[in-house]
Amino acid sequence: MPLQLRSLVRPDATLELSLVEVPMPTITASDEVLVHMEASPLNPSDMGLLLAGADMTRASQSGSVERPVITAPLSAGAMAAGTARVGTAMPVGNEGAGTVIAAGDAAEAQALLGKRVALYGGAMYAEYRAVSVKQCLPLPAGATATQGASSFINPLTALGMVETMRTEGHRALVHTVGASNLGQMLNRICLKDGVPLVNIVRKPEHATLLREQGALQVVDSSVPDFTANLVDAIAATGATLAFDAIGGGRLAGQILAAMEAALLRQPGHVYSRYGTDIHKQVYLYGGLNPAPVEIERSFGMAWGVGGWLVFPFLQRLGPQRTQQLQQRVSDELTSTFASHYTKEISLQQVLTLEAIKSCSRMATGEKTLIRIAPG
Amino acid sequence: MPLQLRSLVRPDATLELSLVEVPMPTITASDEVLVHMEASPLNPSDMGLLLAGADMTRASQSGSVERPVITAPLSAGAMAAGTARVGTAMPVGNEGAGTVIAAGDAAEAQALLGKRVALYGGAMYAEYRAVSVKQCLPLPAGATATQGASSFINPLTALGMVETMRTEGHRALVHTVGASNLGQMLNRICLKDGVPLVNIVRKPEHATLLREQGALQVVDSSVPDFTANLVDAIAATGATLAFDAIGGGRLAGQILAAMEAALLRQPGHVYSRYGTDIHKQVYLYGGLNPAPVEIERSFGMAWGVGGWLVFPFLQRLGPQRTQQLQQRVSDELTSTFASHYTKEISLQQVLTLEAIKSCSRMATGEKTLIRIAPG
Repeated sequence: MPLQLRSLVRPDATLELSLVEVPMPTITASDEVLVHMEASPLNPSDMGLLLAGADMTRASQSGSVERPVITAPLSAGAMAAGTARVGTAMPVGNEGAGTVIAAGDAAEAQALLGKRVALYGGAMYAEYRAVSVKQCLPLPAGATATQGASSFINPLTALGMVETMRTEGHRALVHTVGASNLGQMLNRICLKDGVPLVNIVRKPEHATLLREQGALQVVDSSVPDFTANLVDAIAATGATLAFDAIGGGRLAGQILAAMEAALLRQPGHVYSRYGTDIHKQVYLYGGLNPAPVEIERSFGMAWGVGGWLVFPFLQRLGPQRTQQLQQRVSDELTSTFASHYTKEISLQQVLTLEAIKSCSRMATGEKTLIRIAPG
Repeated sequence: MPLQLRSLVRPDATLELSLVEVPMPTITASDEVLVHMEASPLNPSDMGLLLAGADMTRASQSGSVERPVITAPLSAGAMAAGTARVGTAMPVGNEGAGTVIAAGDAAEAQALLGKRVALYGGAMYAEYRAVSVKQCLPLPAGATATQGASSFINPLTALGMVETMRTEGHRALVHTVGASNLGQMLNRICLKDGVPLVNIVRKPEHATLLREQGALQVVDSSVPDFTANLVDAIAATGATLAFDAIGGGRLAGQILAAMEAALLRQPGHVYSRYGTDIHKQVYLYGGLNPAPVEIERSFGMAWGVGGWLVFPFLQRLGPQRTQQLQQRVSDELTSTFASHYTKEISLQQVLTLEAIKSCSRMATGEKTLIRIAPG
């Protein structure tokens, strides 16, 4: 029987990761296809479900080479947050790529038979997966599974940020993990589309990397004059919208304050104790720092901070525009939307201490691909 | 020459409050009216501009009985926040009521001649004020200036909260300063309109007060089981929108967590590590606690926290609906929208240590009216 990776929160406050044998998925609707999975990325967005907030520095490995098992302790806080999933072994993996080996009766499903597709929808860390054609993106002829494995999460998130900017009436963006895989992709989109982008990075070498890729505004948060540099960069772009993957700490508030300071530089400004009437927004789309968000209000009343997720956003955007965005990903798969992997491992190798600790660090610039089958 | 109250931030980091003689305002457009001011409230929303964040515990009084002067020291932080107003003596006062004694040529201006009106637009702590008829609300026959002085800020803020709930697709409200003048007004509106409301109060006697006024859901944040009580009250109402005047501290995050906990109680709920997909929103419309807002994220990704001000909201709502809301205020001026004052003082008496310290405390249940002229 085919293998599937599972993440279980046990009642004894232990996370248990294992490979389980599951029945071959079957096609249950005419628009479904059965995909032989070939590759799937370990995205930061997979880590929450996979690791359940467990302390991976205290993880241990058991089982066999073919059926390795990783266990790690969960704090009381992590157990409380995961109450709803205790005792249920959750399949994991937001996206991947593979080849369609069976299809339902519908013409759009039949059209994919034998084709390599990118797909999303959870439970992708598995040898086989049945999904609706709506969850598939046919890959361009000749594209490898490696090239197609990350066709949804990062590309649609980056495109979704630019779409959000347009639909909510902003004209430039701030992004807080500029040098990440996603950040580099967003930089390529913005350069191509003429969207002014302020890239915030946390290390000088990341600033260099982005500048080498043509980024015009790069601000390093590790230098003493970060705040002043941020105001300058925001003033140069007119950004009033930021996407932040860090979450915890004071960064979101600092960005709002820098936006307001940049707006106050504009000529013809009239003092109001409520601040400017121009709305400033920071969306938190990740939580690299799980500490509380601390917002020191020094930027008037026209502001917002909130959560942002790409799929609910696309739902609001509607199927037509979403389809256009997906087509663009396919068209520019090996240029704008290319992902770079620093490591390739098997499903079994995911469940090794070395791999799992490396992934749980989510270090900028490192990205691992799970090679499930040749392709 | 008529008197006007002014608030000046001096370059030597001192706040100076005084009465200055200003020329009689003149009508400069056909739709303007000249109002002899009779009464004006000291609202919490006036305190920021009036006091500029000065340390009023260290205030001192000088000048004469007719021209008293209050001075108080400003911290470095308050000076930094007020940079833009240093050296400019700002007129103060968001709203008030008085009698129209001159009018421009336009029919709608002429129609108000001799009538008592409520008005808003700043600089209301003065003996005379010229404004557009758009900033006036004709008071019902027989209404006193005391009854009409607070016809805009609190009534439109409370109505704006209910309108925001409707336009943003929520069905119930949480309000964090339930026993305030505004909170009691909001409670009357919600009871009349059948809008479920969770009132958060900070003292047992405030809970009693609101219950005596018919409030159905009152939660006291000073008791140990506040969190559990809040979840119960939110679950009973289905509230996913809150208005908070406190701002600093952990309350906004606690409300979002309680909303998510209440949503998770609903049957048929499917676990997602991103939380429910139902948007939860807290608007901060005041800053009674100037400390940073601390948001501990334990409620998924469908959330927002942001600033909210009534006049920008009404601008988005449009003139037609705003006019309907103002008409309702006029119709229910002495019932739903009645304000209660615990003290009445003259313009000169505002500039006494006793009055200014009492106002700067903004204690729930205390409200002062400035009596500018009989009416």
